[in-house]
Amino acid sequence: MLLKVKDIAEVLQIMKEQFWEYPADVEEVELMDAPGRMPCEDIRAACNIPGFDKSVVDGYAVKSRDTFGAGDSMPALLQKINEVSVGSRAGIRIQEDQCAYVPTGGMLPPGSDAVVMIEDTEDLGNNSIAVYKPVGPWDNTIKNGEDIMTGQVVLKRGIPIKPHHIGVLASIGLNTVRVQKKPEVSIISTGDELVEPGKELSPGKIWDINSYSLAAAVIEDGGIPVLKGIVGDDRAAIKGSVIDAMAASDVVLISGGSSAGTRDYTADIITELGKPGVLVHGISIKPGKPTIIGSVAGKPVIGMPGQPVSSLVVYNVVVSPLIRRMAGHTEKEQTLLPAVCDENYYSSPGREEYLMVTVYRGQDEKMRVRPVSGKSGMITTISSANGMVVISKNKEGLYKDEEVQVILL
Amino acid sequence: MLLKVKDIAEVLQIMKEQFWEYPADVEEVELMDAPGRMPCEDIRAACNIPGFDKSVVDGYAVKSRDTFGAGDSMPALLQKINEVSVGSRAGIRIQEDQCAYVPTGGMLPPGSDAVVMIEDTEDLGNNSIAVYKPVGPWDNTIKNGEDIMTGQVVLKRGIPIKPHHIGVLASIGLNTVRVQKKPEVSIISTGDELVEPGKELSPGKIWDINSYSLAAAVIEDGGIPVLKGIVGDDRAAIKGSVIDAMAASDVVLISGGSSAGTRDYTADIITELGKPGVLVHGISIKPGKPTIIGSVAGKPVIGMPGQPVSSLVVYNVVVSPLIRRMAGHTEKEQTLLPAVCDENYYSSPGREEYLMVTVYRGQDEKMRVRPVSGKSGMITTISSANGMVVISKNKEGLYKDEEVQVILL
Repeated sequence: MLLKVKDIAEVLQIMKEQFWEYPADVEEVELMDAPGRMPCEDIRAACNIPGFDKSVVDGYAVKSRDTFGAGDSMPALLQKINEVSVGSRAGIRIQEDQCAYVPTGGMLPPGSDAVVMIEDTEDLGNNSIAVYKPVGPWDNTIKNGEDIMTGQVVLKRGIPIKPHHIGVLASIGLNTVRVQKKPEVSIISTGDELVEPGKELSPGKIWDINSYSLAAAVIEDGGIPVLKGIVGDDRAAIKGSVIDAMAASDVVLISGGSSAGTRDYTADIITELGKPGVLVHGISIKPGKPTIIGSVAGKPVIGMPGQPVSSLVVYNVVVSPLIRRMAGHTEKEQTLLPAVCDENYYSSPGREEYLMVTVYRGQDEKMRVRPVSGKSGMITTISSANGMVVISKNKEGLYKDEEVQVILL
Repeated sequence: MLLKVKDIAEVLQIMKEQFWEYPADVEEVELMDAPGRMPCEDIRAACNIPGFDKSVVDGYAVKSRDTFGAGDSMPALLQKINEVSVGSRAGIRIQEDQCAYVPTGGMLPPGSDAVVMIEDTEDLGNNSIAVYKPVGPWDNTIKNGEDIMTGQVVLKRGIPIKPHHIGVLASIGLNTVRVQKKPEVSIISTGDELVEPGKELSPGKIWDINSYSLAAAVIEDGGIPVLKGIVGDDRAAIKGSVIDAMAASDVVLISGGSSAGTRDYTADIITELGKPGVLVHGISIKPGKPTIIGSVAGKPVIGMPGQPVSSLVVYNVVVSPLIRRMAGHTEKEQTLLPAVCDENYYSSPGREEYLMVTVYRGQDEKMRVRPVSGKSGMITTISSANGMVVISKNKEGLYKDEEVQVILL
């Protein structure tokens, strides 16, 4: 089957149609592990918070009507019948003209409906308390359920849990939370020239880069990378590794060797494994053209370009939205930073180009970008870049002093 | 010792003087665990990358001068003496008018200094190759060390490692990286009313919030929270827990019970434990006044307000810069989002106020903020807020339609 190279809009549309309804699994995580995760259902309180009428000051719980009209010259005189401890049942009921000491956070005794701040009272001795200021009903209190009512939604489904939400979950007594399971993403690196970092190189070999850069990106998008290691340019070995990876994970990324041969294997293997097979064979972006997207039994199997910069671009443009979707995240809010281009940059029209740039603050305090020069395939292009600028397929490049929108890396 | 309430600028200055030179430890982490960590030294390549002259195309390695003047009507005729495999030593030296097939990523044979793309050649059979286009010296190659030279710095000390840097570390053969150790932050929650989330409440009790919200914030800032659990309002028990925590961690946070008594314990305990003791006793911010900052044997011991919203504010303003500093991060680049205030908000002057707000996009596409109303101590203030606005101590509040800068939570 021959497929013509597709532009990026078509590719993203195909990804949506094929993979956006991938079934989500659920797991339960500890509170500390919840930030960044997606609740898979609205989280509701199982009881009222607070579960009792609570004082928010140190003072005396009273019947508010007993304090009406109280003033400096004419205090209300109340009989103290109890002292409530924080964290304990309040006990004895307040009757007319009675009061009980309550600390901040303490429970109001039955019969009371407000707290007078201690600063507005005087202990006359002999359990006689003078109140110099009136309080209205429920002044200086939080009523049972006033903060959160039983059944109230405290966190919504589909909004990632932020660190400052953890306290809210604790406040309703949860120590675990049900969240969407992270998608598992197998990464297979192919190429006879590849050696695992940390091991010795023999002549002609290079260290495997893409397994690690793809894995780091998968983690950032909320997935779990599963490194399947390096496979030589051998069709049977690659096919075996893909079959193995498909059984164990939700997505399979095959980082192509640099050779055209391996790229052909990838397409053939996807076709052989099952329907619908290869959906996209080549994307008209630069860099990143030699990308293959397939679907086998509903699972995405993606052949990534072997060249590290191309791999990074294809990951960001095509794979990242998929992983984020599967992790339950909303579409990436891409922080586009406006900046001014430092120099003319020529780009051949016809393919959308992703240009690596260095973003920096110029002397005039304006943000500026400098295109990162470097031959195709040089890893320093990545280490010195902190952003990408998209040059649309109809443009011939960038002009010096042109305003651009930078995707921050 | 009586200390007067300090304003936030004084407090931050004291923190810097006391704790900014806290000694940093180093640890070695796997590549996958490196994103977000701080390299504690410049990371340099131990060898040239690539370690050999490499082809970036599929083609023929040649002596470039043998192709000078070649054209469609007058090809250069070369003798193919070898085929190099990717990942292998190139072997036989190229002599004048000879060439060798080299795939992308393959090693150039000795004697060659350029690669002609296969599209610009014709295989005439019998190992005779016609070259229709000249190449200049080192065309279509990356020379030994051209990408990265031995000793070259690929990642700088003090800049957090980003996911896209992981590939760079792999490219120079590293499978681990030495980074600054994360500071360990003990969190002690005090209060007779507190119960661990997940356990049953008895009357008058509430679930512990601050242990978890502080821990989540510590993780976000690059620290390791150590939950020391709940301690009742008992001076000896709190002191024991602080001594224990000091031995085991770099920072101790004591989340105060709501009672004034516990706050006094905290100051006394810090004073008893060692010099210089209590440095700050009360900060003129709202909420967050009842904060105690101490130093014992060079370690920060901080008494945090028990009220969850106050605790969140004090963490963000005072503790977060400390933890980030100890984790080796640069000062937080606080993303200040300009927005317009929805309503008048009254704030009493004299204390800097941190107002919880909900940020949203208005119908006119402008960002707007709505102050989150709620009594002091209500946790829903936190769940419905996604930002904070600072009202300076000389202001009486915010006006409707006033432009404000929002600190995003």
